[in-house]
Amino acid sequence: MSLKKKFARESFTIMNELVLPNDTNTLNNLMGGRLLHWMDIAAAISAQKHCNRIVVTASVDNVSFKHPIKLGDVITIEAKVTRAFNTSVEVRLDVWAENIPSGARQKSNEAYYTFVAVDQSARTIPVPELVPESEQEIELFEGALRRRQLRLVLGGKMNPDDASELKALFFKA
Amino acid sequence: MSLKKKFARESFTIMNELVLPNDTNTLNNLMGGRLLHWMDIAAAISAQKHCNRIVVTASVDNVSFKHPIKLGDVITIEAKVTRAFNTSVEVRLDVWAENIPSGARQKSNEAYYTFVAVDQSARTIPVPELVPESEQEIELFEGALRRRQLRLVLGGKMNPDDASELKALFFKA
Amino acid sequence: MSLKKKFARESFTIMNELVLPNDTNTLNNLMGGRLLHWMDIAAAISAQKHCNRIVVTASVDNVSFKHPIKLGDVITIEAKVTRAFNTSVEVRLDVWAENIPSGARQKSNEAYYTFVAVDQSARTIPVPELVPESEQEIELFEGALRRRQLRLVLGGKMNPDDASELKALFFKA
Amino acid sequence: MSLKKKFARESFTIMNELVLPNDTNTLNNLMGGRLLHWMDIAAAISAQKHCNRIVVTASVDNVSFKHPIKLGDVITIEAKVTRAFNTSVEVRLDVWAENIPSGARQKSNEAYYTFVAVDQSARTIPVPELVPESEQEIELFEGALRRRQLRLVLGGKMNPDDASELKALFFKA
Amino acid sequence: MSLKKKFARESFTIMNELVLPNDTNTLNNLMGGRLLHWMDIAAAISAQKHCNRIVVTASVDNVSFKHPIKLGDVITIEAKVTRAFNTSVEVRLDVWAENIPSGARQKSNEAYYTFVAVDQSARTIPVPELVPESEQEIELFEGALRRRQLRLVLGGKMNPDDASELKALFFKA
Amino acid sequence: MSLKKKFARESFTIMNELVLPNDTNTLNNLMGGRLLHWMDIAAAISAQKHCNRIVVTASVDNVSFKHPIKLGDVITIEAKVTRAFNTSVEVRLDVWAENIPSGARQKSNEAYYTFVAVDQSARTIPVPELVPESEQEIELFEGALRRRQLRLVLGGKMNPDDASELKALFFKA
Repeated sequence: MSLKKKFARESFTIMNELVLPNDTNTLNNLMGGRLLHWMDIAAAISAQKHCNRIVVTASVDNVSFKHPIKLGDVITIEAKVTRAFNTSVEVRLDVWAENIPSGARQKSNEAYYTFVAVDQSARTIPVPELVPESEQEIELFEGALRRRQLRLVLGGKMNPDDASELKALFFKA
Repeated sequence: MSLKKKFARESFTIMNELVLPNDTNTLNNLMGGRLLHWMDIAAAISAQKHCNRIVVTASVDNVSFKHPIKLGDVITIEAKVTRAFNTSVEVRLDVWAENIPSGARQKSNEAYYTFVAVDQSARTIPVPELVPESEQEIELFEGALRRRQLRLVLGGKMNPDDASELKALFFKA
Repeated sequence: MSLKKKFARESFTIMNELVLPNDTNTLNNLMGGRLLHWMDIAAAISAQKHCNRIVVTASVDNVSFKHPIKLGDVITIEAKVTRAFNTSVEVRLDVWAENIPSGARQKSNEAYYTFVAVDQSARTIPVPELVPESEQEIELFEGALRRRQLRLVLGGKMNPDDASELKALFFKA
Repeated sequence: MSLKKKFARESFTIMNELVLPNDTNTLNNLMGGRLLHWMDIAAAISAQKHCNRIVVTASVDNVSFKHPIKLGDVITIEAKVTRAFNTSVEVRLDVWAENIPSGARQKSNEAYYTFVAVDQSARTIPVPELVPESEQEIELFEGALRRRQLRLVLGGKMNPDDASELKALFFKA
Repeated sequence: MSLKKKFARESFTIMNELVLPNDTNTLNNLMGGRLLHWMDIAAAISAQKHCNRIVVTASVDNVSFKHPIKLGDVITIEAKVTRAFNTSVEVRLDVWAENIPSGARQKSNEAYYTFVAVDQSARTIPVPELVPESEQEIELFEGALRRRQLRLVLGGKMNPDDASELKALFFKA
Repeated sequence: MSLKKKFARESFTIMNELVLPNDTNTLNNLMGGRLLHWMDIAAAISAQKHCNRIVVTASVDNVSFKHPIKLGDVITIEAKVTRAFNTSVEVRLDVWAENIPSGARQKSNEAYYTFVAVDQSARTIPVPELVPESEQEIELFEGALRRRQLRLVLGGKMNPDDASELKALFFKA
């Protein structure tokens, strides 16, 4: 039986969190690991909305943290599935931090998490295809192949010479 | 004043954690984000041992999770600084999961986190040079340049054509 | 100096949470107090977006929990300021629980929390007026007076006979 | 088989908590939601002592927070069942905050939580009748009917005109 | 200035806690360390009530755990200061676990924690004398000397030959 | 079937923890109970490595806390089984606190925890014998008998006059 295709927007998830003392280091800045934890939960919710299955984190791509986030700031994490592969999905995350008194809102970082869908016995299981609609969704859908090749090369599961999509990233000419 | 050089082994850090119910999903498997959080703490302790400074997470490289880790397993995280740059360090992490009744111990994943050292006003500050000793430490020290270029390229801060070290990684011929 | 008025939609906040083992009782159902805690955080974020001030919870109105929420469910909390009074705001919350495998989504409850805005010395401070736009926002804006009278009567700060708005609630004829 | 009646004092429960950093906002004041969470646990313990059953929170009545509670304060929550209905109980809570260096102790708030008793399959199940003894217990026992009508009216499950007990509360004349 | 003496009963503290999933091992039994943590908080609250000062844990005496405590059980911890020394107090703890469905209540353990009172600069500071009233309070007051000698001997701060009170404990003849 | 003997070093466990705000009192010092909790987890991991069984805490010996540990310090806990009895093991713990900016590292305390090994039905079960190798391991192995007698005497399970090993501790002459 083939699964019903789903739209990218059906997996859209927003998570707001307040930075509490235990989330911060002694300079009152949010610790990176705490943010990676929240991002994983937001991304897993998004992946589950697409798959209607329990999902397990398969990988997280390079994440860099641009600005310190302060105690008391409000974190907004937006997550949306970019592309479904056979039994896995890639989720794109955008993270902002908002300082309440000033109202200033800063992009903190972007990231890609991938998840594998599993059944109750923890065996991988096929997921619905994803249909991108907006221009941005289509761009993310297409880039997903390149990012996947990079993951496979970095994980030692693909020969760099076979990573045709990835080469295009590095050598655009 | 120039800082005293330090050996890689001086930053060696071991962290053991027990996988508790709240760290797991409904299949009783450890959630990836929780592990990323623990890894960040272990890596930050290692970086602080090297820098003798408060450090903040600057980035985490691609991490992939190979096997499910179960409720009740014992996690062992080993962290060691691989190389110091001007105001930052790269930390290598190796993670194992051990099942107590069977005694089986499985490599879960490796990862690289980078940290920036800061003073009490949160301004970046120079860190001591790192001196690798063992063969493995020297290999990690040398690879650090390549990984750094990949971070810069992925972060849009370096032109792929200038990433000479990185090209060597992907296209060894 | 008078504060700039703000629209209800500017305070709109969404929070998604995953029900974890520690949030549940021995029947694997979400404990009411945990949900009240999450709702308070979501409502406080919403109130802070309106006030651009630190806010403190002043009260929570009657909340009833309609259906059990299960371990692993995804909670969605939507919060929006309904009306600003002199130094306080009322926030309306709508809570849903979604079961991932089935995709079933159930309204769990509605609630009203009120917050007082304070300065760094914890003294109350005026907040911007709220301008409702949509039909639903206007209805909530108008009902806020009634709910406020009920709070005052229940708190022993208003004589029921003076609660004209409240009487209209009970004796619509 | 009819259940053995129980006295109000058999359900008496005291809970002391220390206000820790993660329980507070950036002004070092206890967040309302955290207190509501503790109150729910205290009330659930009290309800379970009466019912000898797992109980689930059915509702919380209006709660207002009178004074800010500070980091390091000791919270005392006293809970006692006021009345048992068919398959549910109402629990009255009294909350104080004590500042250690000064020894000053302030009433923070009162509240009523209701709980439904359930069996292992989460079906509602009859609870023992409650017998009030002291003057205060009798007063709370009698007021429980009024509060119940208010809950039903606010929950849209009772026509205000039928809430005879409630009318007496609001309009004593 | 001499401090006003205080009665043992003025420091009496009760703490109830519900055993949640994260407090248990994979057999659903409460972990000993979690209970030691709760006992420390209960004892610190009791010590602070006596001293009206911030207190820091100086030591915990031998604690043994008699019976497994199950997930969902209600823990009751009672704490009371037994004796004040110059700048420290000894607190006696009694712990019970209650199984809700059966109503069975079992003594889990007793323990003695000692605390030192400190001022805002973390320097030790004199505490009020304690006056025992009941027979049991007097017995605990007298035993405190013996237990103190045992602590000093075990900590290598007293020669066993000088521990006259302690000898009486071990070798009553 | 007799169990294979194991070496002390096979149970060696290191745990590093960062002192976070919620672990501290209002003077920013680590609370003793939090440390006792971490020590229990480290000791349980060590005991499980020896027994390859789930273990439950049976007792903790006298622990005294020598120096205040500060917010932001790195805790290092080392644990190793000292001796196995029939169905239980004794674990020795050494705890240090390291201040990052200064690099100063202080011994915080030593402790002995004992654990009982249990099967899936929570019945006690025999554990492997322990073979000490180094001089220090042999000394700890021999001292284990004395400490065990002290536990039994303090727990009222042994007559002090029969505690021959213990007498040797108090009356070395």
